[in-house]
Amino acid sequence: MKQQDIQLDSEGRLRHFLTIDGLKRQTLVDILDTAENFSTVGSQNVKKVPLLRGKTIINLFFEPSTRTRTTFELAAKRLSADVLNINISTSSASKGESLLDMLRNFEAMFCDMFVVRHQTSGAAHFIAEHVAPHISVINAGDGSHAHPTQGMLDMFTIRRHKKEFHNLSVAIVGDILHSRVARSQIHALNILGVPDIRVIGPDTLIPKSADNLGVHVYHDIRAGLRDVDVVIMLRLQRERMTGAMLPSEKEYFQCYGLTPDKLALARPDAIVMHPGPINRGVEIASSVADGPQSVILEQVTNGIAIRMAIMSMTLGRSPVSDKEGV
Amino acid sequence: MKQQDIQLDSEGRLRHFLTIDGLKRQTLVDILDTAENFSTVGSQNVKKVPLLRGKTIINLFFEPSTRTRTTFELAAKRLSADVLNINISTSSASKGESLLDMLRNFEAMFCDMFVVRHQTSGAAHFIAEHVAPHISVINAGDGSHAHPTQGMLDMFTIRRHKKEFHNLSVAIVGDILHSRVARSQIHALNILGVPDIRVIGPDTLIPKSADNLGVHVYHDIRAGLRDVDVVIMLRLQRERMTGAMLPSEKEYFQCYGLTPDKLALARPDAIVMHPGPINRGVEIASSVADGPQSVILEQVTNGIAIRMAIMSMTLGRSPVSDKEGV
Amino acid sequence: MKQQDIQLDSEGRLRHFLTIDGLKRQTLVDILDTAENFSTVGSQNVKKVPLLRGKTIINLFFEPSTRTRTTFELAAKRLSADVLNINISTSSASKGESLLDMLRNFEAMFCDMFVVRHQTSGAAHFIAEHVAPHISVINAGDGSHAHPTQGMLDMFTIRRHKKEFHNLSVAIVGDILHSRVARSQIHALNILGVPDIRVIGPDTLIPKSADNLGVHVYHDIRAGLRDVDVVIMLRLQRERMTGAMLPSEKEYFQCYGLTPDKLALARPDAIVMHPGPINRGVEIASSVADGPQSVILEQVTNGIAIRMAIMSMTLGRSPVSDKEGV
Repeated sequence: MKQQDIQLDSEGRLRHFLTIDGLKRQTLVDILDTAENFSTVGSQNVKKVPLLRGKTIINLFFEPSTRTRTTFELAAKRLSADVLNINISTSSASKGESLLDMLRNFEAMFCDMFVVRHQTSGAAHFIAEHVAPHISVINAGDGSHAHPTQGMLDMFTIRRHKKEFHNLSVAIVGDILHSRVARSQIHALNILGVPDIRVIGPDTLIPKSADNLGVHVYHDIRAGLRDVDVVIMLRLQRERMTGAMLPSEKEYFQCYGLTPDKLALARPDAIVMHPGPINRGVEIASSVADGPQSVILEQVTNGIAIRMAIMSMTLGRSPVSDKEGV
Repeated sequence: MKQQDIQLDSEGRLRHFLTIDGLKRQTLVDILDTAENFSTVGSQNVKKVPLLRGKTIINLFFEPSTRTRTTFELAAKRLSADVLNINISTSSASKGESLLDMLRNFEAMFCDMFVVRHQTSGAAHFIAEHVAPHISVINAGDGSHAHPTQGMLDMFTIRRHKKEFHNLSVAIVGDILHSRVARSQIHALNILGVPDIRVIGPDTLIPKSADNLGVHVYHDIRAGLRDVDVVIMLRLQRERMTGAMLPSEKEYFQCYGLTPDKLALARPDAIVMHPGPINRGVEIASSVADGPQSVILEQVTNGIAIRMAIMSMTLGRSPVSDKEGV
Repeated sequence: MKQQDIQLDSEGRLRHFLTIDGLKRQTLVDILDTAENFSTVGSQNVKKVPLLRGKTIINLFFEPSTRTRTTFELAAKRLSADVLNINISTSSASKGESLLDMLRNFEAMFCDMFVVRHQTSGAAHFIAEHVAPHISVINAGDGSHAHPTQGMLDMFTIRRHKKEFHNLSVAIVGDILHSRVARSQIHALNILGVPDIRVIGPDTLIPKSADNLGVHVYHDIRAGLRDVDVVIMLRLQRERMTGAMLPSEKEYFQCYGLTPDKLALARPDAIVMHPGPINRGVEIASSVADGPQSVILEQVTNGIAIRMAIMSMTLGRSPVSDKEGV
């Protein structure tokens, strides 16, 4: 079954959240609107709503990521769910249990949601294909395939600053080829109707099939940034530096690092985004990362609201019984 | 003090849960009946009851076990208790603190329950002998001695399918010698009045004193399975394979692996159980593990209800004050 | 900014808790009085108060310490806060993210408090200097600098037994030079008006500037313990034993280990304290540690109440909204 099909229940509502690819514009807008409602919870004195009380959410992390796990754990706790963190490297995987047997076991314990992070593309989709009907799966990053909650929090951040998508120019800069973040962003920008999506990077880091993605390819960052409304910098995975794909960090910064003078080519009100953690002086100058156009920390804040929205939409499809109250 | 004595308070109620050996039939039935009440909590929309709100439960795991820890953690959270996971290998044990000093410290923090997993037989009993009067200890598996919550969830599963114990034939297959699970099952089956308990395995994996346990020993699985109502397969600990105790995995499967043709010798309505995680193709064929007679995943589900029952019975002996409400 | 200044808000209330040095006597008394109120929570049937419900507390441990982390986690949960444990060695620190960038990220997730343990003196102060205005920082031990919650729980324990501070003789015995615990105790004892503070240890383990600390230095433990009301033994860090600073453990025990005959030199009603974990037979004889004058386990109990007091005083400065109730 295609991922976009498996994601929806029989009434067309979100059941899993595996990829942005193939979702309807209205679904994305619903997520953004729901997140808007949750965006005030974080700044309230009591940062909790009882929407998912009594639900059990498993963070199933096959690849360690304190940052991403933390945002999902905070989102779940602020929805009053119970959260279990399972680090697979230390789990009974070492006892030779198969992934499917492990899933069957968690299901039998009446867990309601798996938040899955995996180094292999397609892992979350595979899990979603095999879980029981009452369980929702959220993709928290699978290989170089997708990181859809990151994509949605980026759209949320853009909408907050630019209001509309239909008149924007958005540039994504860096290692597009290996980036699950970029892939999810491009799908979302296309669905939301952004007319001018640009990817900027060296030839070795742009997918050959980029033209099919509905983007314009630039190798010259100065040309690519001209008059854009949004600049999205990608994290340079330093482990890629060893191969022949990339020049030195210093050369990379020279060519593709976002500096004040390059940023000056964008529109004066352009915002600068980055999924974090940032490599200062590699893909972005500190003066830009900390500068007035940077919305990098707003992205982190928005990530909690977006994850609360997606968790509550997928898990809370049938109204939560209030017979036990809060 | 004997374990069966230390487990009960002055009014004969369960205070600790260390071993099934020596408990009264009525105590086991009370546990099964209480678990029956909890068995619906897992499938409710709000999977929580406030019975142990404000209680502090420490998972004291000297031996890693994600699966067992998870079931206790879920059971505790669904009873609304606060849970702390202490992995002893990373704790101040490395600072040379003695076990008793560590216990004294947790007691001084007003913890209410220790769930203890330890590689040494008798560890949970030792801890129960030394804790303060208000603290309950649950044995989550000690060496090759006992795994009593597993034993009780197995009895719960059998009762759900067979209603009565007094007319059953139950076969336990595999490494009886090293299995704390088998030991707890045999005690429970005897106490609940099962007239025909069989243990099946190679001579090297059956305790010499098996006859004293109230069981019949079979080395031929085909003879042992004939007309039984319940087949309990044990997990083959692969680390035992290296010694001279066992033939190869393939030979083991040939002799003692549960296959459809061997299972056909049992009663047509026989159920197949396994404590998990299963070794497919070693002690059990996949077609049996996933077949219509398998209740392996029900065991996992029942494990939550049994642990909720035992936790609430041991900790909730004096009625929980409701002056602070839920 | 000096630590004592940064700790207070514009109205003179505790905002951070980094060091006892420089705090007013009244602030310390307020902490002790607040802890007195919390000291009954641990022994209640429902060990929870809703004071910090909906607050998010991050245990930011750069140095592992199961014991200290556990006391903060329990204190936070009994105040109904949500707690996240971040072990920095396994966090994105490995991705090369700077400490400040990490803090910015947690802030953006609307965390309310960092409990910081770090091997470097000044780390908690550095973090407090750089956090957003709404965040409180608690020092859970930084290098050899300070361990102020330990210092306060010790004062709480002394006050419970001795009622007043103005007439006491208090001796601290052991490795004063490297001890953050001793430093915090000395500051607190001075501020609370203890007229006779003695430090006892070999010359190599007493700071050269001890006289400036308002203490009397003794190298002979028998002279130092004479007629004191309180004996505080420090833990001997065994890793210091390898260098030339110390004789063997046996010799150390001979000279500075607290034995019944040495303790007999103190006042008959003297209490014996130790921050734990104790090295039996190194700095303290078992008969003393477990004897009638020992209040070592009371210190552990009091540590929960003190941490609840400090957490609620720093985080709960503006009254908690009750619009969502408990």
